[in-house]
Amino acid sequence: MWRLADLAAAVGAELAGDGEVRIRGVATLERAGPDQIAFLANPRYRAQLAGSSAGAVIVAAAERDTGSQPRLLTANPYACYARVAQLLHPTPRPPAGIHPSAVVDAAADIAADASVGPQAVIGAGVRIGAGAVVGAACTLGDGVTIGAATLMHDRVTVYRDCTVGARCIVHSGVVIGADGFGMAWSGSEWIKIPQIGRVLIGDDVEIGANTTIDRGALDDTVVEDGVKLDNLIQIAHNVRIGAHTVIAGCTGISGSTRIGRNCRIGGGVGIVGHVDICDGTTISGFSLITKSVTVPGVYTSSIPSQPHRDWMHTLAALRGLPELEKTLRSQLGLRGTTSPAEGESS
Amino acid sequence: MWRLADLAAAVGAELAGDGEVRIRGVATLERAGPDQIAFLANPRYRAQLAGSSAGAVIVAAAERDTGSQPRLLTANPYACYARVAQLLHPTPRPPAGIHPSAVVDAAADIAADASVGPQAVIGAGVRIGAGAVVGAACTLGDGVTIGAATLMHDRVTVYRDCTVGARCIVHSGVVIGADGFGMAWSGSEWIKIPQIGRVLIGDDVEIGANTTIDRGALDDTVVEDGVKLDNLIQIAHNVRIGAHTVIAGCTGISGSTRIGRNCRIGGGVGIVGHVDICDGTTISGFSLITKSVTVPGVYTSSIPSQPHRDWMHTLAALRGLPELEKTLRSQLGLRGTTSPAEGESS
Amino acid sequence: MWRLADLAAAVGAELAGDGEVRIRGVATLERAGPDQIAFLANPRYRAQLAGSSAGAVIVAAAERDTGSQPRLLTANPYACYARVAQLLHPTPRPPAGIHPSAVVDAAADIAADASVGPQAVIGAGVRIGAGAVVGAACTLGDGVTIGAATLMHDRVTVYRDCTVGARCIVHSGVVIGADGFGMAWSGSEWIKIPQIGRVLIGDDVEIGANTTIDRGALDDTVVEDGVKLDNLIQIAHNVRIGAHTVIAGCTGISGSTRIGRNCRIGGGVGIVGHVDICDGTTISGFSLITKSVTVPGVYTSSIPSQPHRDWMHTLAALRGLPELEKTLRSQLGLRGTTSPAEGESS
Repeated sequence: MWRLADLAAAVGAELAGDGEVRIRGVATLERAGPDQIAFLANPRYRAQLAGSSAGAVIVAAAERDTGSQPRLLTANPYACYARVAQLLHPTPRPPAGIHPSAVVDAAADIAADASVGPQAVIGAGVRIGAGAVVGAACTLGDGVTIGAATLMHDRVTVYRDCTVGARCIVHSGVVIGADGFGMAWSGSEWIKIPQIGRVLIGDDVEIGANTTIDRGALDDTVVEDGVKLDNLIQIAHNVRIGAHTVIAGCTGISGSTRIGRNCRIGGGVGIVGHVDICDGTTISGFSLITKSVTVPGVYTSSIPSQPHRDWMHTLAALRGLPELEKTLRSQLGLRGTTSPAEGESS
Repeated sequence: MWRLADLAAAVGAELAGDGEVRIRGVATLERAGPDQIAFLANPRYRAQLAGSSAGAVIVAAAERDTGSQPRLLTANPYACYARVAQLLHPTPRPPAGIHPSAVVDAAADIAADASVGPQAVIGAGVRIGAGAVVGAACTLGDGVTIGAATLMHDRVTVYRDCTVGARCIVHSGVVIGADGFGMAWSGSEWIKIPQIGRVLIGDDVEIGANTTIDRGALDDTVVEDGVKLDNLIQIAHNVRIGAHTVIAGCTGISGSTRIGRNCRIGGGVGIVGHVDICDGTTISGFSLITKSVTVPGVYTSSIPSQPHRDWMHTLAALRGLPELEKTLRSQLGLRGTTSPAEGESS
Repeated sequence: MWRLADLAAAVGAELAGDGEVRIRGVATLERAGPDQIAFLANPRYRAQLAGSSAGAVIVAAAERDTGSQPRLLTANPYACYARVAQLLHPTPRPPAGIHPSAVVDAAADIAADASVGPQAVIGAGVRIGAGAVVGAACTLGDGVTIGAATLMHDRVTVYRDCTVGARCIVHSGVVIGADGFGMAWSGSEWIKIPQIGRVLIGDDVEIGANTTIDRGALDDTVVEDGVKLDNLIQIAHNVRIGAHTVIAGCTGISGSTRIGRNCRIGGGVGIVGHVDICDGTTISGFSLITKSVTVPGVYTSSIPSQPHRDWMHTLAALRGLPELEKTLRSQLGLRGTTSPAEGESS
C-alpha cells in the first residue's frame, strides 16, 4: 500500500486532492475500487471519470478540475501510469543465490546478489551482473555476459560469447546467438558457413517469448538500447536494430538489414535482407519491405480481408488487370501504360 | 488388440459383420492389413473399399452394404475414426510420481497420481490435478494450476498464477503467461507497463509446439474450453478465444481482440488488436483482419502466387491502377470513381 | 593458425603465391588483417582486392593475376570460403561423456564418444551415435535415434520414436515430433486424432532455432538429406521435404504437402496442405502457394510496401476494380471480362 502523496513524489507528478489515500494497485477506470488508481489518457473518455470508484486517478494537467477523485497531474498520463504501475506491481524476483540444482562452471563470475534458478546451466567464463536473474532451466554458453539487474525468465538460451546488457527483460523460450542461416552451394550440396559473429544486446531491451536472434556471420548482430521486441520474432544474422525501436510479434527481419532508431514495426511484417530503414520509420502490420527506406513515414502493403466471394471477384479482376490495360490501349487508344517496375523484385 | 465388437460398443457405433475380428491399430484404406481398421469418410473414395485389405472399416450407415469387410456404421465416420484411434493408440503417459531430479517447492500441491518429469521446476503454491502429467524440463511459476488429466509435454513454461484446465494437451516449447507487449512512450524511451493479468486456459484445450500466449495487462487473457491451437501461434495480452475455435499455425492475434466460439482460423493469419470476431467466423489462411467481423462467413485477403514474371506484370498494373482510373475518367469521361475507403487502415 | 599451403590442400584449391603465410581466421576484404583470409565471389567488387590488407584471398581462377596477395584459386570461391571457414573456425563441441546431472534411462544406447549435456533427459531405447552431441537441457523421448556426429544445441526436444540423421545441426528450441494438428468435428466438439506417425530427419540437415516439425498422423513426416531450415518454421504433419531444399525463416508448410529437391523457399511463405511442389522450385519470400507447382521456376505473390497514403489509394482502386470493369463493359462496350478463376480458393 502506498500513500498517494508518496506515489506522486516517486513519479514526479503533481498531487491534487487527498494525499493520504492508500493505493494498493492499478485498475481500469471502470473497475477500479477505492484502493486502486486508474488513468485517463484520452480526453474522449473523460465521462468515465465521473462514474469511476477509483481511489485516485492519473490525468493530464488540463483535467485538474474534472471529477472529484484525488489525482496525479502530469504531462503524460500514460507514461505516469506505467511508472506508478511499476511501483505498485513490481515483478516478483527470486531470491539471490545459485540454486543447488543449477550446473555452474567453476570459471563463471556471478555477482553475489544475482540469482541463478533451478536446473540452469552456466558455462565457463560467463559473467552475470549485480542483481541479475537467470531463470530456471536457462542455458548460457561459454563466455556469455548478462548485465546488471537483467531479468531472464525461465528457459532462455544464450549461445557462447553473446552479451545481454543491463536492466533487460528476456522472456521464456528466447534463443540468442544461434547460427545465422548462411551456406554456399557447392554444385551438389549446401556447405555451412560458420557463423563467428556474436549477438550484442544493449541495455533496457525487452525480448518476447520464443523470439530468436541469430549471431552474425563475421561481424555481430546488434540490438541497441531500449529496443522492445514482441514474441515469435526472427532477427537474422548481422541485423542491427536502432535504439528505442519497437517490433510487434511474428515479424521477420532478414540478414544484414539495418533498422534505425525510434522505428515502429507492426506484427507479421517481413523485411528483406541488406536494406536500410531510416530512423523514425513506421511499418504497418503485415506489410513487406523490399527496399531501403530513406524517408521517415508510414509504409504499408497489407490488404484487409473481404467476404470470401467479394475477394474472389477482386482477385480475379486483379489477375485480369494487365490484360484489361492492354485491351484499353488497343480498343480505346488509351495512353499511359505500366510495365514491371524496375528493380521490383522480392 | 481389441475385438471389433468391443470397439463398436466403446465408441457407440453399430457393428456389421464379424465382431470377433481382432484390431491392433488404424491405417489408411490403402495400407491397412487384416489387424487394422480404416475409415471411409468421403463417398468419392468408395472404390478404395473393394481393394482394401483392412480387417475392418468405419463407414457411414449408407455404406452398410458396400464391400465385404466387417464394419462399424456411424453417422460421422471421421469422428468415429478419431475415437477408435484414441482407443487403439493411447498417448503414452509416464508413470505417476515426482521424478527425483525435479525441483518441487514444498508448498506445491501435487495429486498422488500425477506425474512430474525429470528436471521439471515446480513453484510455490502450484496445484497439479489428478492424473495430470508435467513433462521433463517444464517450469511452472508460483501459483500455477494444472487441471486433472492434462498432458503437458516436455519443456513447457507457465508463468506465475496462470491456470490450465483439465484434459488439456500442451506441446513442447509453449510459453503461457509471458508479459504482454505493453509500454508507454515517455518522450525519450519506452516505459514498461507491468502485466498483472493472468492467462486462463479452459478444459480440453490443445496448444501446439512453441505457441505463445501472453498474460493480460490488467484483466486476464482467456482461452475457452475446447479451443485447438496449432504451432507457433502468438496470442497477445487480453485476447479472448471462444470455445471450440481452431487456429492453424503461424497465426498472430493482437491485443484485446475477442474471437467468438466455433471459429476456424487459417494459418499465417493476422488479426489486429481491439476487434471482435463473431461466433462461427472462418478466416482463410494468410489473410488479414483489420476490423470487427459481425456477420459469420468466410473472410479472405490472401493472394495465391503466380509465375514471377506474370506477378510482376500484375503488380505493376496494380501500382498503376489509381493513375489508370484517373486517365479513364479524364480521357473517356468514365463515371464512378474510388477513393481511399473510410477507416481503411492497418 | 594454418599455413596457406595446407589450407589449399585441405580444400582442394590451387595455391598461387606464398604458401607459408599463416592464417588465423576469415574476415571481409574490408576488415581482414595479415593473418586473415578473405574472399571475392563477385567480380564487381574486384577493386576491393587492391585495398585489402588480407593475408590471403580466395578468388576465381580468372582472378589469378588481380592483386598481389597470396591466393587460393577455385571454380567456386564462395563454397571454397565456406570450407576454409569451417577449418579455421570449427564449432566448439563439448567433451565426450554424459554429464552427471543428465537423466539417462538405463535402456539408452549412447556411443562412448558422444556427449550428453547437463540437465538433459534421455528416454528408454534412445540411440545416440558416435561423436554426436546432445546439448544441455535437451529432452529425447523414448525410442529416439540421433545419428553420428550430429550436433544438437541446448534445449531441443525430440518426441518418442523420431529419428535425426548423421551430421545434422539442430538449434535451440527446436521441437521435433509434436502431434500434428488433426481432429474431427463431432458436431459439438473437436475430437483429437492420435498422431501415430513419426518424424524422420535425414543426414546433413540443419534446423534453425524454435522451428517445429510435427509427427505424421498415420505415415511419417520426412525431411530428406541436406535440407536446411531457418528459424521459426512450421512443418506440419506428413509433409515431405526433398533433399537439399532450403527454407528461410517464419515459413509455414501445411499438412501432407510434398516439396521437391533443390527448392529454394523464401521467408514468411505459406504453402497450403496436400499440394506438390516440384524439384527446383523457387518461392519468393512472403508469397502464398495454394496449388501444386509442376513447372520449376520462380513463384511470387508478395507486394512490396508503398508510402501509406499511396497504398491506401492503390488499395481503394483494387477494391473498386470489379466495379470499374463492369462500368467499362457497360459504358464503353469493352470486350473481355474476368470472373473468379476456377478452383481459386484459399
